[in-house]
Amino acid sequence: MAEPKHQAARAERAKKTVAKIQKLAGETLREVRREQNPAVSIPIRALSNVTFSAKRQLIELGDKSQSREFFNVSMAKKFMQTFLVAGACKDLLESGKTTSIRDLFYMTKHTIKGAKENTFDDQVESDPIIEDLEVSLDALREELHLFAAKRGSMVGPMVIVDAGDEIDLARMGSGGWSIPSITEDYVIEFKKSEAEYVLLVEKEAVWHRLNEDKFWKKHKCMLVTGNGQATRGVRRLLQRMATELKIPLYVLVDNDPWGLYIYSVVKQGSISLAYESMRMAVPKARFLGLRTRDFKRFKLSEDVKIDLEKEDIARAKQMLAYPWFAAKHWQEEIGDLLAAGFKMEIEALSNKDISFVTDVYVPEKIAKKDWLA
Amino acid sequence: MAEPKHQAARAERAKKTVAKIQKLAGETLREVRREQNPAVSIPIRALSNVTFSAKRQLIELGDKSQSREFFNVSMAKKFMQTFLVAGACKDLLESGKTTSIRDLFYMTKHTIKGAKENTFDDQVESDPIIEDLEVSLDALREELHLFAAKRGSMVGPMVIVDAGDEIDLARMGSGGWSIPSITEDYVIEFKKSEAEYVLLVEKEAVWHRLNEDKFWKKHKCMLVTGNGQATRGVRRLLQRMATELKIPLYVLVDNDPWGLYIYSVVKQGSISLAYESMRMAVPKARFLGLRTRDFKRFKLSEDVKIDLEKEDIARAKQMLAYPWFAAKHWQEEIGDLLAAGFKMEIEALSNKDISFVTDVYVPEKIAKKDWLA
Repeated sequence: MAEPKHQAARAERAKKTVAKIQKLAGETLREVRREQNPAVSIPIRALSNVTFSAKRQLIELGDKSQSREFFNVSMAKKFMQTFLVAGACKDLLESGKTTSIRDLFYMTKHTIKGAKENTFDDQVESDPIIEDLEVSLDALREELHLFAAKRGSMVGPMVIVDAGDEIDLARMGSGGWSIPSITEDYVIEFKKSEAEYVLLVEKEAVWHRLNEDKFWKKHKCMLVTGNGQATRGVRRLLQRMATELKIPLYVLVDNDPWGLYIYSVVKQGSISLAYESMRMAVPKARFLGLRTRDFKRFKLSEDVKIDLEKEDIARAKQMLAYPWFAAKHWQEEIGDLLAAGFKMEIEALSNKDISFVTDVYVPEKIAKKDWLA
Repeated sequence: MAEPKHQAARAERAKKTVAKIQKLAGETLREVRREQNPAVSIPIRALSNVTFSAKRQLIELGDKSQSREFFNVSMAKKFMQTFLVAGACKDLLESGKTTSIRDLFYMTKHTIKGAKENTFDDQVESDPIIEDLEVSLDALREELHLFAAKRGSMVGPMVIVDAGDEIDLARMGSGGWSIPSITEDYVIEFKKSEAEYVLLVEKEAVWHRLNEDKFWKKHKCMLVTGNGQATRGVRRLLQRMATELKIPLYVLVDNDPWGLYIYSVVKQGSISLAYESMRMAVPKARFLGLRTRDFKRFKLSEDVKIDLEKEDIARAKQMLAYPWFAAKHWQEEIGDLLAAGFKMEIEALSNKDISFVTDVYVPEKIAKKDWLA
C-alpha cells in the first residue's frame, strides 16, 4: 500500500505551495483594500543580477528585484498575467494534477471580457511569467505542478518508488526507466540503493553500450543519460542522488565546448536559470572526459579527429572567461582543446574496440582518479 | 532464469543474419575466383521504385535494382564500403553486441593502407550503405545489430521480458518504460497482456496527462508516446502489438498536416523507408484526431485556433494527392482543414478542462467509433 503514503506526501507539499500563492495574493488584496497601488516584487533574472559564488561553487541569483505594479501602463498586463498563472497553478495543486507549460498556456489563454485583448497571445509570454513566479514564491516550477519535456533514462542497483509503484532499476532490460519531468522526493523515493557512484553519459548510444555490457552491475553504479543536455528532471535527480545517497557523480561527455557546457550546467547551473542552482546543481560533479590529451594517451587514430569550427573556437574562448572555469586545470584543459584544433566524440573510442569505453576508458579513469572537478 | 532463453533466441537470430552476409560474400568471392567482375545487386531506394499497394495498404519498394560493380570507377568505392559495413555487422552479430549507426561509422572509418584515401569521410556516406545492406540482405538494421535513436515511453496492463528482465508495465510510476531502439521479438517478449487496444499519443505532455489520470488502467490499454514522430523502435513495437496481440491501434495527434503525417507513417510507412513497411507499418491504425470538426463538436474556444501557415497549406495539398489519402473521407478531412484555415494542438482541449482529453475526448470517440482509417 505505497500509494496512499506517496499521495499524502504530494498533497502536503502542494498545500505548502498553495499557502505561498495565497500569501502573495493576500498581500496584494490588502493593498487593493487600502486603495494603494498593488505591486509584486519580482527578483531580476538577468546577467546583471547573476553572480558566481566561489565558496558554494554555484551560479546564483543576486538580490536585485523589480516592483511589478498594477497602475502602470507598461506593467498592468504582466501584473494581470502573474495572477492568472498563479491562479491556474493553485487549481492544479488543489486538484493534485500536474501539467506542461504548453498546457498552462492554453489553460490561461482567453479573451478578456468586454475587450478584444487576449490574456496571452503566445507561449513566449506565459513562460517568463512562470519563471517570475518561481523566483517570487521560491518554488520550483515542479512544485507549482508544472513540468518541462521529459528526456533521459536510468538503470542501476537501486529500488525506487515512483508515484506509488516500486521499481527495481536493476531489472529494466534494454530500455531502462524513463526519467520523468518531476523527480522531487514526493514523487520519486530512493528505497534501497547499492550504488557507489552515478555515471551521467551525454549520449544515449554510449549509455546503451554501457547498459548492454552491464557496466553498472559490475561497477555498482547508477547509469544515467540525459540524451544531450540534462533536463530539469534529470538534474534534480542527480542532485538528489549526490546529496541523499552521498555518492559521487561522474560526467562523461564529448571532447568539445558543448560537452564542457553540459558538464558545467550540471555542476554549477546556468545563467538563465540561476535561481534554480541551489536545487539542481552538483558542485562536486567530476568531469570524466573525453579530454584532448586522451587522443595520445589512448593512442587513438587520426580518423577520429574533427576540426574545430569557428563557433567551437568562439564558445571555447567564452568559457575561458567564465569564473567557474578560472582554475588553472580548466584553463589548461580548454587551452589544450584550442591548441590542438580538433574535437572528438565519445564514439571515437569505438575506433579502438566497441567495448573500449566499458572495459578500459571509464573504469581506468575512475580507478586512477583521472578526472577534473 | 529468463536470461539464457533470451540470449539463445538472440544468438539464433544473429546466426541467421550472419548466414545472409556470408552468402552475399561467398557469391562475390566465387566471382573473384572465376576472374569475373564482382557485383552486388542492390534494390533501388528511390521514389521511382516505390508503389502504394492498395490491397495491402502499404507503401512498398518495387523490384528495380542496380548492379554495384567492383571494376567500375564510379562504383568501386561504394563496393568496398558495402563489404566493410557488412564485415563490421558480422563482427557485431558474432560478439552479440549492438551499436549505433554513428558508432558503426567510427568502427569502419580508417585510412586505406598505402593511400591517403579514407574508407569513409562522413557518416552521410555510411548511412546509405547500411540501407543498401538492409534491402539487399532482407534484414532490418536492427537484425544487423544496429540501432537508431531511442525515444518514447509506454505503460499499460502488460508484462514483458526485456533482455531477460521481467517488467510489469502496470507498475512503472510516472516515468514509464523507456522504449528501446531494438524491439524485435528476440529482445522484447510479450509475456502477459490484458490490453484491449493500444493508444499512441504524439505528444509526451498528453501521454503524461493520460498516465497521471491512470487512463490505461480504467480502459485497459497500452499507452504509448513517440515524442513526435514515432521512431523505428516504437513503430516495430506497435506493429508487433497489433499483430501478435490482435488488438487495434488508435493514434492521437494534433490537428495539422504534421499530425496527419505522423499517423500516415505509422499506418503505411514512408517513401524513404519503403522497404521496411512490411515490418513496421500498421495498415489498420485508426486516426483518433484531433479533427477540424472537433472545434464545433466540443464547443472549443476561439483562443485555441492557430492560423495555418504557408507550409501547412502546401503540405496539406501535397497530402491530398497521395494515393493513401485518396479515399473520400480523407479528402474531406484534409479539405476541412484547408477550408477552416486553422490548426489546433491536442493541448487545445485543456482550454475546457485539464482532464477533458482523459474523461471525455478519447473514451467518447472510441465508444462512438468516431475514428478514421
